[in-house]
Amino acid sequence: MELARIFELEARDGRARAGRLILPHGEVPTPVFMPVGTRASVKTLDCRDLQELEISMLLGNSYHLYLRPGIELLTRAGGLHAFMRWPGPLLTDSGGFQVFSLGDLRKLREEGADFRSHLDGSRHLFTPESVVDIQRGLGSDVMMQLDECPPGTCSEEYAAASLERSARWAVRARRAWEESRPLHGHPQALFPIVQGGVYDDQRRRSMDLLLQQDWPGVAIGGLSVGEGKPDMRRITDLCGRELPAGLPRYLMGVGTPEDILESVALGIDMFDCVLPTRNARKGTLFTSQGRYSARSARHSESFDQPVDPACDCFTCRHYDRAQLRHLFHVEEFSAMRLGTLHNLRYFLQLMEGARQAIRAGCYAAYVEQTLAPYHRPKGGGAEGAAAS
Amino acid sequence: MELARIFELEARDGRARAGRLILPHGEVPTPVFMPVGTRASVKTLDCRDLQELEISMLLGNSYHLYLRPGIELLTRAGGLHAFMRWPGPLLTDSGGFQVFSLGDLRKLREEGADFRSHLDGSRHLFTPESVVDIQRGLGSDVMMQLDECPPGTCSEEYAAASLERSARWAVRARRAWEESRPLHGHPQALFPIVQGGVYDDQRRRSMDLLLQQDWPGVAIGGLSVGEGKPDMRRITDLCGRELPAGLPRYLMGVGTPEDILESVALGIDMFDCVLPTRNARKGTLFTSQGRYSARSARHSESFDQPVDPACDCFTCRHYDRAQLRHLFHVEEFSAMRLGTLHNLRYFLQLMEGARQAIRAGCYAAYVEQTLAPYHRPKGGGAEGAAAS
Repeated sequence: MELARIFELEARDGRARAGRLILPHGEVPTPVFMPVGTRASVKTLDCRDLQELEISMLLGNSYHLYLRPGIELLTRAGGLHAFMRWPGPLLTDSGGFQVFSLGDLRKLREEGADFRSHLDGSRHLFTPESVVDIQRGLGSDVMMQLDECPPGTCSEEYAAASLERSARWAVRARRAWEESRPLHGHPQALFPIVQGGVYDDQRRRSMDLLLQQDWPGVAIGGLSVGEGKPDMRRITDLCGRELPAGLPRYLMGVGTPEDILESVALGIDMFDCVLPTRNARKGTLFTSQGRYSARSARHSESFDQPVDPACDCFTCRHYDRAQLRHLFHVEEFSAMRLGTLHNLRYFLQLMEGARQAIRAGCYAAYVEQTLAPYHRPKGGGAEGAAAS
Repeated sequence: MELARIFELEARDGRARAGRLILPHGEVPTPVFMPVGTRASVKTLDCRDLQELEISMLLGNSYHLYLRPGIELLTRAGGLHAFMRWPGPLLTDSGGFQVFSLGDLRKLREEGADFRSHLDGSRHLFTPESVVDIQRGLGSDVMMQLDECPPGTCSEEYAAASLERSARWAVRARRAWEESRPLHGHPQALFPIVQGGVYDDQRRRSMDLLLQQDWPGVAIGGLSVGEGKPDMRRITDLCGRELPAGLPRYLMGVGTPEDILESVALGIDMFDCVLPTRNARKGTLFTSQGRYSARSARHSESFDQPVDPACDCFTCRHYDRAQLRHLFHVEEFSAMRLGTLHNLRYFLQLMEGARQAIRAGCYAAYVEQTLAPYHRPKGGGAEGAAAS
């Protein structure tokens, strides 16, 4: 079966790449950060917020959507795009990560993953095939195969057996994809997921197995799941070197500004993470001067000082740090939304800056300048690293 | 001392009045509903939401603002308008209602009200004078005197003694107002508050005492605090008949669409209530077809059906009942904001409709038509009355 190509490479700077995903709901400049819209909504935001942030691609979580409001309902609604009023490109995960995070509530076998709902304990089975069906119902532009995502500390033996099963599941997912049709009038791409833990040989084995078939893009899973930063960096480096240049590479669940910019330098094109949204709800904001705690009493009287003078987000244009500190202090819900608007805009601007720097051939300098405030020791100009 | 008049009466229909408050931060068409911005924020909303809702006047709570972020900070910020980025007219209450709601945490004496903070138990004293100072710091367009608000079930003897003290406090507040100057460059009006419980003679006594001085407007307190609807209606009727026609009349803390429209018919001009915002956060929405529960499973698949086809709010223009039901069901914060946007717009449209009807001389027909869905028996076209 001939696959439509969805990726155009436009520029390189070292191994960093700028390109473009061409998807049914629009074109996506890369490198791209996809905010997470877990339950048909980016937490705290409305549909206009998504437009005004200039988000180019969103991620939806199959596991959560499968449980509530349910795939049949979403299918009847016209898919996830229609239900959540999001007209742009959408990627859905396979639900595998959430299922494997359930611990004792799930059981793995060759057929798929049995699990109990975290909401009501009801029993469910995800198979490579059913997860393709789910994503057909959702109508995402890019679907992911069901894979197993073992912890970052698993043994090489476990990683080897697990990646082999994930590779078999990729073949089954691919067959289900070929044998099914889109339900909402547009084609959907399917990505396989490289696994293999922190073991170079196993990662190579995973890539060999998966790349026996042709794909429109490929994801790297099983990172940022408890392994150390050096392992994460080494495996990203390896995959960045050895994956085919023509495929967009999606590093799942990563990460901090530091991790993202360093991974772009290693050849990664796509990212998603709950970090900017989750941290925002707790009051930890990312700025051009480093992280800062919006709750801190030191900002009580920072009148007329925006969160980040370099930012053009709604919050930075309309609020000062004093007001935001008050709203977080008294625990107004609006504070969580204002923080989310800022953090997402910061991440989106970070990616746009990366893209421009790659095209201009000055990516290394961009990274150095952008991350400098994040590397200052605690007690320096910024407030040091907050929990992430 | 010569008082500037702040109210122009424009039209009457029966005893219902349409007019205009002329205040330093703008003109306010009456009858007016003031959304409650408890802690320098209308819960869940941002500063642009307030503009887009076309709110003409907001209420702020002195008690909450006094505790957090504190009056000194707000004074340094340039007042509450500057701090919360609200450019329009603002009324602040005296904090009395919140203090008297503290029960055992407060103690009343002639000087004022001793109380312990509900946050940290710290001791504070509100006097008629200190409460004027607080509102000077806040810089509201309209300030309220400190009064005692006894429960709706208090005895006539208690009501009599209490209204006399509130009247003495009005004199003291008035003197503090005359002897103090605005801190933020614009004049501030001060309203006294009629008390006297559910007793006609005591209400008359309160009006007599207060109206020995000249005021720019007058409030009616001590209603919607546990007395029955017939008592509330009778006292509102009495005050509406006997208060001077030239003063705007503000019925504090009222209420439902029914209570508001019926009170307008009795000559009331100004209202505030947490009902639309608090109910919205729980998923109870007001519509031209009556109340409905946005959480109800019966709306799971109400695709393309807005909350209220007659409404022009953000939520009704961008969301359907199915999506909103999902967001409430999974407890997304965004649901509370979307509900708040709708309910406030409903109340504001209700008042605009009342004003137009009064000017057109068809207020009674407007009330009948508007409230019909609210009076239908349960199981009829609407869902019957939700808890309010």
